[in-house]
Order: sequence, then C-alpha cells, then structure tokens
Amino acid sequence: MASSCKLASRDHKTDDTIVMIGNVEIGGKHPIVIAGPCTVEDEAALLEIASSVKNAGAKMLRGGAYKTRTSPHDFQGLGEKGLILLAKASDKYGLPIVTEITDPKDVGLIAEYADMLQIGSRNMQNSALLKAAGRSQLPVLLKRGFACTINEWLLAADYILSEGNPNVVLCERGIRSFEDSTRFSLDILSIAVVKKMSHLPIIVDPSHAAGYREYVASAAKGSIAAGADGLMIEVSVNPETALVDGRQALTLIQFSELMVQLNHISKGIARSVSVSESN
Amino acid sequence: MASSCKLASRDHKTDDTIVMIGNVEIGGKHPIVIAGPCTVEDEAALLEIASSVKNAGAKMLRGGAYKTRTSPHDFQGLGEKGLILLAKASDKYGLPIVTEITDPKDVGLIAEYADMLQIGSRNMQNSALLKAAGRSQLPVLLKRGFACTINEWLLAADYILSEGNPNVVLCERGIRSFEDSTRFSLDILSIAVVKKMSHLPIIVDPSHAAGYREYVASAAKGSIAAGADGLMIEVSVNPETALVDGRQALTLIQFSELMVQLNHISKGIARSVSVSESN
Amino acid sequence: MASSCKLASRDHKTDDTIVMIGNVEIGGKHPIVIAGPCTVEDEAALLEIASSVKNAGAKMLRGGAYKTRTSPHDFQGLGEKGLILLAKASDKYGLPIVTEITDPKDVGLIAEYADMLQIGSRNMQNSALLKAAGRSQLPVLLKRGFACTINEWLLAADYILSEGNPNVVLCERGIRSFEDSTRFSLDILSIAVVKKMSHLPIIVDPSHAAGYREYVASAAKGSIAAGADGLMIEVSVNPETALVDGRQALTLIQFSELMVQLNHISKGIARSVSVSESN
Amino acid sequence: MASSCKLASRDHKTDDTIVMIGNVEIGGKHPIVIAGPCTVEDEAALLEIASSVKNAGAKMLRGGAYKTRTSPHDFQGLGEKGLILLAKASDKYGLPIVTEITDPKDVGLIAEYADMLQIGSRNMQNSALLKAAGRSQLPVLLKRGFACTINEWLLAADYILSEGNPNVVLCERGIRSFEDSTRFSLDILSIAVVKKMSHLPIIVDPSHAAGYREYVASAAKGSIAAGADGLMIEVSVNPETALVDGRQALTLIQFSELMVQLNHISKGIARSVSVSESN
Repeated sequence: MASSCKLASRDHKTDDTIVMIGNVEIGGKHPIVIAGPCTVEDEAALLEIASSVKNAGAKMLRGGAYKTRTSPHDFQGLGEKGLILLAKASDKYGLPIVTEITDPKDVGLIAEYADMLQIGSRNMQNSALLKAAGRSQLPVLLKRGFACTINEWLLAADYILSEGNPNVVLCERGIRSFEDSTRFSLDILSIAVVKKMSHLPIIVDPSHAAGYREYVASAAKGSIAAGADGLMIEVSVNPETALVDGRQALTLIQFSELMVQLNHISKGIARSVSVSESN
Repeated sequence: MASSCKLASRDHKTDDTIVMIGNVEIGGKHPIVIAGPCTVEDEAALLEIASSVKNAGAKMLRGGAYKTRTSPHDFQGLGEKGLILLAKASDKYGLPIVTEITDPKDVGLIAEYADMLQIGSRNMQNSALLKAAGRSQLPVLLKRGFACTINEWLLAADYILSEGNPNVVLCERGIRSFEDSTRFSLDILSIAVVKKMSHLPIIVDPSHAAGYREYVASAAKGSIAAGADGLMIEVSVNPETALVDGRQALTLIQFSELMVQLNHISKGIARSVSVSESN
Repeated sequence: MASSCKLASRDHKTDDTIVMIGNVEIGGKHPIVIAGPCTVEDEAALLEIASSVKNAGAKMLRGGAYKTRTSPHDFQGLGEKGLILLAKASDKYGLPIVTEITDPKDVGLIAEYADMLQIGSRNMQNSALLKAAGRSQLPVLLKRGFACTINEWLLAADYILSEGNPNVVLCERGIRSFEDSTRFSLDILSIAVVKKMSHLPIIVDPSHAAGYREYVASAAKGSIAAGADGLMIEVSVNPETALVDGRQALTLIQFSELMVQLNHISKGIARSVSVSESN
Repeated sequence: MASSCKLASRDHKTDDTIVMIGNVEIGGKHPIVIAGPCTVEDEAALLEIASSVKNAGAKMLRGGAYKTRTSPHDFQGLGEKGLILLAKASDKYGLPIVTEITDPKDVGLIAEYADMLQIGSRNMQNSALLKAAGRSQLPVLLKRGFACTINEWLLAADYILSEGNPNVVLCERGIRSFEDSTRFSLDILSIAVVKKMSHLPIIVDPSHAAGYREYVASAAKGSIAAGADGLMIEVSVNPETALVDGRQALTLIQFSELMVQLNHISKGIARSVSVSESN
C-alpha cells in the first residue's frame, strides 16, 4: 500500500498542505467548490455563470480556453480570447480562475490571466508539461490520469514539486472501467487513500466522472462526506447547446440547489465544515 | 443509458420497492446498517459482536457459514454449525440474519435459520442459484459481480424476480479496476444510476471494496451521503487473527465511532434519515 | 508471478498434462480445433455443421443445450432435446461432444450424452458447479472468468482437480477491458503464462473474445502461433439468423478457409504441429 | 464498430499505407522487426546489440535517449549524448533509428539524428506533441495509450496526419487490465480491428506488454501470425543490470532464436512474408 513518491508523500511531510489561490484556501478547514463551464464560449454566458455560482457559494471559477480534445476535428477552445473573458469575469465577481494548460510554451501567457494552472487527465504523465508547471509560480490542479494508479498520480505530483513549486492540488475525476452507464467510474476510495499516503489536498470532479448531469449531485455529496477538500463542478447557462460536454453540466438552478445540500452535509461531517459564504 | 432489464426496471414499477426483513425496512425513509464478521468462526466472538453492533445502531447481523472462496484450499465456513450460531445471536439480540448461499440445494436448510439470503459477487451470474433464491420465500441480497455492469446486475435481479420473489436488495461491493492500492474500486456512481434505472433498494459494502479498514469509514460516509439505502460493514473482535478478510474488518470501537458520524451525515441529507435506534 | 494454486501448478506436476476425450488428445503434439454452433437450435443445421467442420479438420463438436444467459428473458437452450441432437451428430460424424453445464444437478444427465463438460465464464467461480464437475468422470473444459486473473483461474481448476478429476483443459475466451470495438479483449499473453505456471493444456476461444466474425481468423492464427493447444470456434449455417451470438460465428466456408491457414501456421511453429486430418 | 477518425480512416483512404524509413518499408509485403535496448546507456553495449540484431535480421534500431518515466526520481535518459550514440550505431550497421520524443521543443534536435520519432504510450493524447511531430518531416511511430480505445488511438493519429505528415505507424504495446501476472494485457485483436478501420500500418511491442522476457516470444509469434506489420522488441547485452526495464529484454541469443521462429511463421501466413534479410 505504500507509494513510491517522495516529495508528495506523507512520510516526507506529515502535516496537511494548504494551497492558497488568492485568498481561497484548499486543504484547510472548509471544503470549497470551483464551478464554471467546461469551455469558455461566450462572454454574456460566462458572466451570468460567474455571478450565479458566486451567489451560490462557489469560491473559484473554472473554464477552458485551451482544451485537450480526443479528436483534432473538435473545438479546441478560444485560446487567449478565452483567457481574457475569464479574467474579466474573475475581476467582476472576485473569483480566482483555474484553467487548463496543454503546451509547455503557454505557461507564460496563461500565467498573465489565470490564478491556477490545470493539468488535464490526458496530460498527467506529460513530463515536459509537469516540469513547466512546476517552474511557474502558480498553484497547479493536477487531475488524475483516467487509467493511472494513485501511486502514479503522486509521482506526477513529484514532477511538479521537484521543480520547487509546493502548491499542488490533486483532482480525482473518474477512472476508466468496463461500466458503460457512466463515462468513467468515480474512485471514491482515492480520497481516503490519498489522505493516508500524501499531505496534498484532494478535490473531486464529479461532472467528468459521471458524464450525465443526473448523477452529479449524488457523487458530489458522497465526495464531500468521504472527506474531499473540495469539488469542481461544471455548470452551463444552456447545457444542451454547449459545444463541449453539455450533457454533464448542471443548470444554474441545479447547482444552487446542490450547494444547499452540500452545506447540510458539510455540517454533518467531523470536520464540521461548510461550503457556504457565510460559514 | 437504458437497461434491458424488465421486472427490475423503473419503467416496470415506478415507486421505490421497500424490502422487509422481519421488522427491518430496506429502501424506506431510513438507511440501515448491517454488521458482523466476514465468516462465523466462534460463538463467544459472534455474541460479543452482535451485542456491540446492536448497541451502536446496526439493524441486522451478517456472517458467513458457507463461503465462496477463490481457492479450494482456504477455509470454506462452518456450514450448518455456523447457521446455528447465527440464529442464536439473532434470537438473543433481535437482529435478523443475512447469510450467503452458494449451492441451490442449500436453500431449504439456510431458510430454516436465516432471514435473508445473500448471493455473493462471484455467483451473480450463476443462474441456477438465482432461480433457486427466487423460488424461496426469503428476501435476497444480490451483490454486484465485481466485473459486471449495472445492466447485467439488474438482469440478474430479473432472474430472481421472474420466479415470483419481489424482495431483492442490491449491494454494490466494488468493481475490478487497475488500481491496486485498494482491493476493488467502489463504484459510488452506481447508487445514482440504480436509483434512476430501477425501483430496487441499493446498499453498499465498503469493507470488501476497500480491503483495508483505514479506508472503510470514508467510503461508508460517502455512500450514505450519495443516497444509499444502507451499508453492510465487516466488524471483528480481533481483526488481525480472523481466518478470512481480517484486514478489512473494523474493530467494535471503530464501528461505534463510525455509526455516530453516519448519524450526523444522515441528518444532513435531504432524506433527513438516521441510522440510529432512537431516530 | 507465482500462482497460489497447488494441484494445477507446474511445481506440483512438471510434465504437460494431456487430456483424452475419446481418441482426441488435447495438450499433446498437435493443436486441435473444436467447432460448432453457439447453441443447438435445429437438427438439419447441426448435422450440416458437423459434416462440414469434420471435413475441414475439426476434431470435436461444440454446441450449447443449457446456456448461461445474462438475461432470463433470452433463449436458454433446448435442454435434453439439444443433448440428443448433439449425440446424434457426434455418432454420425465421429466427433466427441463438449457442452456447457450450468447446474450441479444436471451432471448425470449431461454425462449420458456428452464427452466433455464445459464450465462457462460466468460460472468459473461457482464452487458448487466446479466440485460437481470434479466428481464426474468426464473431462472438463474450464473457461476463464472474463474478469478473473490467471491465478484465480488456476485456483478454480484446483476445485475440480481436488475432487479427483485430473482432466481439465483451460480455455481463454477474452477478458473485460475498456476497449469497446470488440466484445472482450483476448489475453494472448495468458497462453505463455499458463504454460509457465501450470501443466494443464490451454485452448483459445477467439469467437467470444472478438464478438465479430471479421476479427476471428486473425485471433485464431495468433493463438496457434503463440502456442495454444487448440481452438474453439463458433460456426453457423446462417449466422445472421442465429438466436444467440450469430454476429461472431464464422460461415462454413470461412471456417474451412481458416483451417487451411491454421495448417500452414502450425507447420511454421517449433512444435511443428498440424490441425489437419492427415497429420 | 466505426471509428470517428477521418484521415486515418479506411473510408478516407482505401489502400494500405506503406511508410518508408530510409529504405525500410513498414506496411508492405514483409513484416519487419525493430530491436534495441529500452534506453541507451553505453556505447559498447549499443554497438554489440546493433551488430547482433542486424545479423539476426532486424531492420531498424530502437533506443531511448529521452524517456518518459513515471517517476521524476528515475533515470531520464542520456539526452543528446544518447542520440549521438544511436546515430553512430546506425551508420555503422545501416539500421535506421527510431527514438522517443517527449517535448515539442526537442523535435528539431532529434530530427538531426533519428530517422523516425516515437510518441510513447503516456503521451498518446498529448496534443501539443502530436502536432509538433506532425509538423516534422519524419515518420512517426505512435504507441497506443495503455488505457485508450482504438478509436482514440486513430484520433491521435489524425492529429499528426492533420499537420500534413502522412507517415504514421501504429504500435500496440499492451493495455491496462486487472490481470497482474503480466505488466499489461496485449490486445491482439487490435491488429484486426486497426486493419479494418484504418489504412495505417500496425506493429506490436510484445516486450512492454509482457513485462517479463519469458512471455515475449509467444506474443511476438502470435502477433505476426495475427497479421501485424512488424514488431518492436527489446534486447539487452546484460538484461539484469539494465537501468530501465531489464526484466523484459531478451538476450541477444534469445532474440536470434526468436527471429528464426518468426521466419517460419511468416512463411506460414497468407501474406507469405519473411522477416529475414534473405527473403
């Protein structure tokens, strides 16, 4: 059960790491929620989402400008134009931004606009990208490769930590299995395993795991109760017309309702935490 | 996303099925907890466990008398002697019994002692056993095959339901994946999927999924928050000396502490349920 | 890499086991081919198949009379009527029969008609069935559970061997993975692993692994070259109208053409074996 | 069963693509073998390997100078020094070189020394790297992601083809499954599936799939018989002391013996091809 990681290991650092993104704390007393569209497509929609999720208690805004797509024929994101829109929404609503990086050469540009770099599942073992993220000054959200073990995930974190960047947050987003009624199988046990093996915070992305919005709330509640340090949830003004992954995005109303339920659950767990603004 | 099952389908029966085992209700307002040793080995230990889990709020007692073991060289259970011990503990503490059946010919004998038949993961597609359980008068706990889809699981339930036995409870117990830090990967999303596709109740066995006791509480809390109708948890007086699966059993003290936490979480979810005796 | 099996282990018995079914030898110098329909449906078709595969060089006839189906609503086989048809074809063309057993109580009846019992993938860990097959006098074809490790497979063989029946032939038939362009993933490496760990013969069923007839010949040739002791291949007079698994059955002409190619490959491997009648 | 790829699709181009690397043809009449050490470590050893595999019939030399390692604490390759050694061996023995690229910025440097770029399994969905390889003038060996479907693999090929580089060779190298007696499960069926869906050549790497040298020859023979256009095989002067993956490398003698067997098998398949120099 031991991991072969070094810097990410609980043996290397026994106390929990808390990662600060602006004034948002991940890995501390309160689990936090990051919300936003899968991909930035439209300014008005992005501002409406930012306003709505802020009111519901989200602490950070997510949105893709550079996407890792399985097919080169699919929409690859707005690029810098998307970053500018994200920064605008961030300023207006006071929500730090996390956005995906897919090429080592983009680190400088993205760092001008974003508060946290996301390394996607398909790039978890892209060592050039891990090292580039490690050399930046930004906190990094490291998604688990959808067919990588927890040990491999912590070794990928070691690539970032080895470059002198201590601010890594892990994100479980579902693993590949034979089950085909969901897009991936959310590995809920990874939360407890990571907490034992590593000092790094771990959040959960139930949206990409489930692939269907009707299963997202259940998985989100389960993750918080299981001890996750936060959630990353996709929302959309109009999920059915989204260019990317609309089938898994919550509507703004569904998101607000979920946040109320998450608040109740947070109060019920030993950490006695809360996701809401007022707690 | 649709299942090809018929009788187990939500389309066939829209309202939730509630299964009664004695006066215990599974699938109703309150999630319930079934606890006990993996395998019945010793009378004194079994009575101590029954007493302790009863006090902590468990509603039913589990314990194996006939085991499906991977190897013929491993301990296969005490057989009828184990059933007699279970019945004794059941009478003394008012806890209905669920125990595994592995051979169609044993239905009659087991029905004399037990309140619910368990069909194990390795027998989920054993159609002769499914039919025999369907012909009995007892409620059936149907564990998911560790590499079977949810659709195949509901079709296995259809084998039981087709014989005229409507009292089937599903039990998610982890699926096989590449991850090797846990024995199986607990498919937390299966809870929401089953609730959408089927009217049958679903409980979760975090012990067999995790394989290591330090991960059981996290998964148990996550499952209740995600909407499971109950849990089946292994406990042991002395886990380290158990002949079978001791590494995953909670101690009696750990179990009692977990029950308190589960109570707090139950209060936090929309169903506003509780696992404790007094609620 | 060591297996925990005992009787099936190469450590227990160093020389290769050869299993005789009538005068057909599995595990000896020549790989053999078993062919037939997935399920016996019709006398005329069965006789046509038997005649044709015999001419093409097949040594045994397969056909299901009792089927393990995922759904209780699907065709379950003709039962004893199917056995009678198989025996008739066997007598007429001198091809020993292998057929599936799904319930321990059927051993006696099936033994009256068949020459070899098949335990299907979904029953590989059905210990009651394994033991019943072990107590019979018939050779047993033990298919690998589609999500069972090679070690678990050899332990299942141990259940049969432990009852005093030494005549077990293993059959790799594909394992479950995330790949969805084929029904299962054929684990070609299992051939070399089994040969190292065990003394038992191993054959391959490329039809159930592939699930589509256009991929069967490639996998069949690969399996023989990799060292398999034989193949089990589905054929059909009219695959498109078969009640069960027609999509994966070869036509009689495709089968004959494949047999010619297999003969060429057999001559090319170190064992210098052949599947044809004249060798 | 259809793939969503475009340029890699058999629908887009019906005739088989033949990729030339120097005067070596992949995808043509004769399957070819690429051999060499996992990682270049030492000049004398590399030259000995090159000489030996050339004599045995190998057509190309492989060797890693830039490695994608799971852990940042493991040996990452000799870098340009490794490229220089590879080029030296290539010149001396007339064997074109294939070597791995891990960072888009290295394309220019590697192109000075190598004849073919390899994109490793962990980078199969690294779109920045795929595009950089596509913009180069070099043929590309695209290994399958160890948990990617064949469809996703062909879409990754589309990233390269979309940049105007038509010279892509696919390489099956094993997929992740639950089986733990081998490092990966070699998906032999992928050969037939790729041949149906795509016009691109496909070779197989049995060394990384098996993970243990005693299983490599069986898988290599099976792959050629199943229709692969070639093999990539690890060899080592002294496997037990190699810094990387020594457990799976063949000795030079084992490799030579395997080449003789592969020659016999090639003659036995319909393509009637041969891997030896003289055919």
